Amino acid sequence: MDIAALRSNHPDHWMRATAIRALALDAVAHANSGHSGMPIGMADVATVLFSEHMKFDAKRPDWHDRDRFILSAGHGSMLIYALLYLMGDAQVTLDEVKNFRQWGAKTAGHPENFLLNAVETTTGPLGQGISMSVGFAMAEEMLRARFGKKLVDHHTYVIAGDGCLMEGVSQEAIGIAGRHQLSKLIVFWDNNNITIDGRVDLSDRTDQVARFKASGWHVQEIDGHDPKAISAAIAAAKANHAPSMIACKTHIALGHAAQDTSKGHGALTNADQNAAAKAAWGWTSPAFEIPAEIKTWWEAIGTRGSADRDDWEARLASTSSMRQAEFARTMAGEAPKRLPATIRALKKQISEAAPSVATRKSSEMVLEVVNPIAPETCGGSADLTGSNNTKTGDMGVFDVDNRKGRYVYWGIREHGMGAAMNGMALHGGIRPYGGTFMAFTDYVRPAMRLAALQHIPTVFVMTHDSIGLGEDGPTHQPVEHLAISRATPNTMVFRPADTVETAEAWEIALMSQETPSVMALTRQNLPTVRTEHKTRNMVAQGAYVLAEAEGKRQAILMATGSEVEIALKARDILQAEGIGTRVVSMPCWELFAQQDEATRRKVLPAGPVRVGIEAAVEFGWDRWLVGERGRREKSAFVGMKSFGASAPAEVLYEKFGITAEAAAEKVRQLLAGDWQAAQA
Amino acid sequence: MDIAALRSNHPDHWMRATAIRALALDAVAHANSGHSGMPIGMADVATVLFSEHMKFDAKRPDWHDRDRFILSAGHGSMLIYALLYLMGDAQVTLDEVKNFRQWGAKTAGHPENFLLNAVETTTGPLGQGISMSVGFAMAEEMLRARFGKKLVDHHTYVIAGDGCLMEGVSQEAIGIAGRHQLSKLIVFWDNNNITIDGRVDLSDRTDQVARFKASGWHVQEIDGHDPKAISAAIAAAKANHAPSMIACKTHIALGHAAQDTSKGHGALTNADQNAAAKAAWGWTSPAFEIPAEIKTWWEAIGTRGSADRDDWEARLASTSSMRQAEFARTMAGEAPKRLPATIRALKKQISEAAPSVATRKSSEMVLEVVNPIAPETCGGSADLTGSNNTKTGDMGVFDVDNRKGRYVYWGIREHGMGAAMNGMALHGGIRPYGGTFMAFTDYVRPAMRLAALQHIPTVFVMTHDSIGLGEDGPTHQPVEHLAISRATPNTMVFRPADTVETAEAWEIALMSQETPSVMALTRQNLPTVRTEHKTRNMVAQGAYVLAEAEGKRQAILMATGSEVEIALKARDILQAEGIGTRVVSMPCWELFAQQDEATRRKVLPAGPVRVGIEAAVEFGWDRWLVGERGRREKSAFVGMKSFGASAPAEVLYEKFGITAEAAAEKVRQLLAGDWQAAQA
Repeated sequence: MDIAALRSNHPDHWMRATAIRALALDAVAHANSGHSGMPIGMADVATVLFSEHMKFDAKRPDWHDRDRFILSAGHGSMLIYALLYLMGDAQVTLDEVKNFRQWGAKTAGHPENFLLNAVETTTGPLGQGISMSVGFAMAEEMLRARFGKKLVDHHTYVIAGDGCLMEGVSQEAIGIAGRHQLSKLIVFWDNNNITIDGRVDLSDRTDQVARFKASGWHVQEIDGHDPKAISAAIAAAKANHAPSMIACKTHIALGHAAQDTSKGHGALTNADQNAAAKAAWGWTSPAFEIPAEIKTWWEAIGTRGSADRDDWEARLASTSSMRQAEFARTMAGEAPKRLPATIRALKKQISEAAPSVATRKSSEMVLEVVNPIAPETCGGSADLTGSNNTKTGDMGVFDVDNRKGRYVYWGIREHGMGAAMNGMALHGGIRPYGGTFMAFTDYVRPAMRLAALQHIPTVFVMTHDSIGLGEDGPTHQPVEHLAISRATPNTMVFRPADTVETAEAWEIALMSQETPSVMALTRQNLPTVRTEHKTRNMVAQGAYVLAEAEGKRQAILMATGSEVEIALKARDILQAEGIGTRVVSMPCWELFAQQDEATRRKVLPAGPVRVGIEAAVEFGWDRWLVGERGRREKSAFVGMKSFGASAPAEVLYEKFGITAEAAAEKVRQLLAGDWQAAQA
Repeated sequence: MDIAALRSNHPDHWMRATAIRALALDAVAHANSGHSGMPIGMADVATVLFSEHMKFDAKRPDWHDRDRFILSAGHGSMLIYALLYLMGDAQVTLDEVKNFRQWGAKTAGHPENFLLNAVETTTGPLGQGISMSVGFAMAEEMLRARFGKKLVDHHTYVIAGDGCLMEGVSQEAIGIAGRHQLSKLIVFWDNNNITIDGRVDLSDRTDQVARFKASGWHVQEIDGHDPKAISAAIAAAKANHAPSMIACKTHIALGHAAQDTSKGHGALTNADQNAAAKAAWGWTSPAFEIPAEIKTWWEAIGTRGSADRDDWEARLASTSSMRQAEFARTMAGEAPKRLPATIRALKKQISEAAPSVATRKSSEMVLEVVNPIAPETCGGSADLTGSNNTKTGDMGVFDVDNRKGRYVYWGIREHGMGAAMNGMALHGGIRPYGGTFMAFTDYVRPAMRLAALQHIPTVFVMTHDSIGLGEDGPTHQPVEHLAISRATPNTMVFRPADTVETAEAWEIALMSQETPSVMALTRQNLPTVRTEHKTRNMVAQGAYVLAEAEGKRQAILMATGSEVEIALKARDILQAEGIGTRVVSMPCWELFAQQDEATRRKVLPAGPVRVGIEAAVEFGWDRWLVGERGRREKSAFVGMKSFGASAPAEVLYEKFGITAEAAAEKVRQLLAGDWQAAQA
């Protein structure tokens, strides 16, 4: 690469972009950790984007109508930190830059949305950024349709690398964006031909341009180091009616000894080579120092968006106060004020009518009353709408000619759906929920984890939550997936036993500001167990006494979801034998774990034998069976020890021994002191 | 669709194919569950494939050099069962067909490889079949290179639907197959334009032909109901040097009232409509009855491959007995006889040299001695070769011009790698292992579950297994992933503490015939803790006493992997204070759980206080802390309560409180009866 030509063709641009390069090189070398080559290679694109196109205000990086910038290639985090420092973001001081990748720093190894408000989204797991960006762009379309162009009108820019494009989820994202012609989504592909293992060619020869075109994208190919070409491409991308991909031919670690090599991907820490690179760049300042002229220029760039913001604020102020309040509520992610009353009314009605329905249907009943009062919800399903029961009558279908539609047909793309929902939640103004079969938690996992890590309240509607789905067999029957979600920090896993608990779970999920929810819902019908109306949200306690023992309390049966019915039947059997039995419904372990010890002990007192019942693996149950002052010799579990099988649901429950009689027998065995028998 | 024309143009073919249609319609209606439309729509393709091209012997469906047939659209399972019944597979009787989707039937809702030996692979979770097929085709290439065309020379055929192609993992598979020009892989796309939610167009407008071409595939577009076109396309696909995709324009539920609708995807159970469909087809036989002439024709098709098989067996018999024995051993998945001695020799050497290395490096040291004696291993990494330490000196790189290469650069495709490895293991003759960062378990999950469900010994090498990876931060630091894998049935999760345990874990993984393994390995260096050589494989016990208490045994410290070192240091602290402390290393919970109670009790006797130490969430630990005759008031856990953070590893261990002193303090608190303090 002819660095001298780059320098002389656009000398001012070169030095401004090289300020990013120098900071990235210095910070990574100082930390002795990180990725130098990507920020160095993409500095030109970033400089042109922020200086000529991005609607961005460094003083208010969280202004609602800003353009969004998503670094899907999150390992190049120093690109963001360098930009923010140069533009004068108050949170990214020079000390923060020097503290890159250290304990307590906001300048973490990968960009974290919860550390810097200018970071739109946590990235690092490849493919997630580009997939979340689809949700950002959809949220913008939906909000523009709802609140008008005066309040919502911005672009979503993404930098993605070869890693992002090789991850399968990128195909799902490309397909969704192409189908919905998300014209305000603009993706820069850092086409540097290098991965960690070597040349891209080692593992892939896909023609990315043809691939994006096949899904209806507008595609341009440019020299990613030519500022005029970059700016012209962005202008062209904005002007057309399809999502845009700009293939930027770049050189990773440009001008460094490691240029165009996989070594250039990682931490460049050789002092001599780094000095030589700076010399080649024409960069003479000491480490971490930026010439005043360049810093001043960048700080002016940092204020470029302030006039836009002033105008926008004036427009907002000129709308009705009701509209302003609704916009503020929506963007703050606050639930509608009427939500609790709406839920209570439904609970009252249901506890009286006591229908026998599947909880996936219960969920639909809740959404039918919630969606009309919560215009911020966006529902969807990964091609299982009729099975997940996620679509309600009032929503309309999101489409190219109906941006007001609030239901998304995501296609057979569980992962892409999950990531896009996260993008919507991060954008703000949309409360997304989406459905698939619970066994396909596996497909959504990377997005579910990122929801938890990013503190966003995405709702994952997981129906067909056990062997109760029946004939489709073990590939479709979750057994370990409750444990998988429960093991994940900052995640609420709800497994409601009937429509009333389902309504309570939805209330909590929709009030949540920082925690995602998993709704584990049945395919099969369940009776209403909460037939006595309580205004209090009992699910909020996580676990509670559903049926008290009559006579001396000798046993506690603990169950969730569809197995609560079984616990109640087992109680009937045992009470008929004179064995006082309490039934505890445990719809949300995480919320129960958060209760104080007195509350927990009240629900699960020491003394009685304990039997847990759940059509899933036992893994994790010991917390409640023998922790919390239980005893191994006085506890047992009724559930799954293996994958499921293909047969009608009721046959499976019988064959796998998840029955009221099996639970009752374990209580008898434990009371008789025969612990070994109860483990069988 | 003009059914009359289809019938009259190719009358014989039509009735033969319609035998499949009728059986599918009858079986689904009888079960009142399943998917009728796909087998009906793809009956023509299947009939031509099996009658004119597939090298298949219904009497010996597991013959090694057969062509492989993979129904990626697994919900259309009746297509396979109908074919097998018609061709006379002894396992698929008419009773089995009538028993479709019932308890104990081999004709499960989705095809299960462990129920029928003619079923190459379990499918159902969409995208998995096509992705596993890439591994089948790679295995064929590798084995042909190793054993010659005389013994190995067959095709892999796949039927994939729109769902398979929308799943992101299909892009990874398409990319891998295109890159490696797997010319013997032939995919039929059931292009029926229908998904469960409606027309494909609702969610996707991708030009699939262009998409496959972009990755270097040979693509044809045909009428999927025209037998001559189907046969010609297969012949053309076999003749070229790229993987082939044949886009078959078909009509789902052809000839039925539900034709070309999403209703046609599911169970067609309306008796009148079904009768009308049969009338339209010209099918007059009663339910489940096949006219003798047609059955006879199909049974002859079932024997088409027997001459090929005879020839092949003659060729095999003509090779040297040593070669025959090696081929038999390889295809049976038996470990080399020298494996145990090789592992023992390494253990002896290591316990003497006692190096301080990361267990990812330990793993490489093991592979360096194993790979040369086990030519069936195939290693790889999802673009983290230098980090996962999966490549050894002798392997060579698998490529278009080096089919003998045993190392695969999978690219940034964790999921595609996992699925392809499963395909290799299912094909037989290859023992695959592949690496990524453990946090990216999330990306591989669907394949990891299918390995466990299918009873295949795929090895997932998961390095950087905790906050010990340091600066990359929480996106890259697993905390819940040990729990995720441990919760999964039929999965061995190894977390070795040093090189000796790593060698023992690999020995078990490589001897395993029916259970996949997860190797959780550190980024950071660890001391050798097994400095006293034992010939016995201690990891095979799952957990064992690594260091005994001196004096009265008051405490047991239980730890895995990198935290065993911490446990030993905590023991030093406690012993110095006169507190007799045992250290139990627990490299594989699943194997320990399989020990008899006496063994478990010997390792974890009741009485002493117990502290578990693991740089991961506590979820699941209660099994060992308070189950197994422990007591909540006498146990505590040192580990993670949240996601990690970005900082150097040693800082993170300190900040998150995973230290020897913290463990020692919990022991002191428990011994003092201050249980509450120990929970903090």
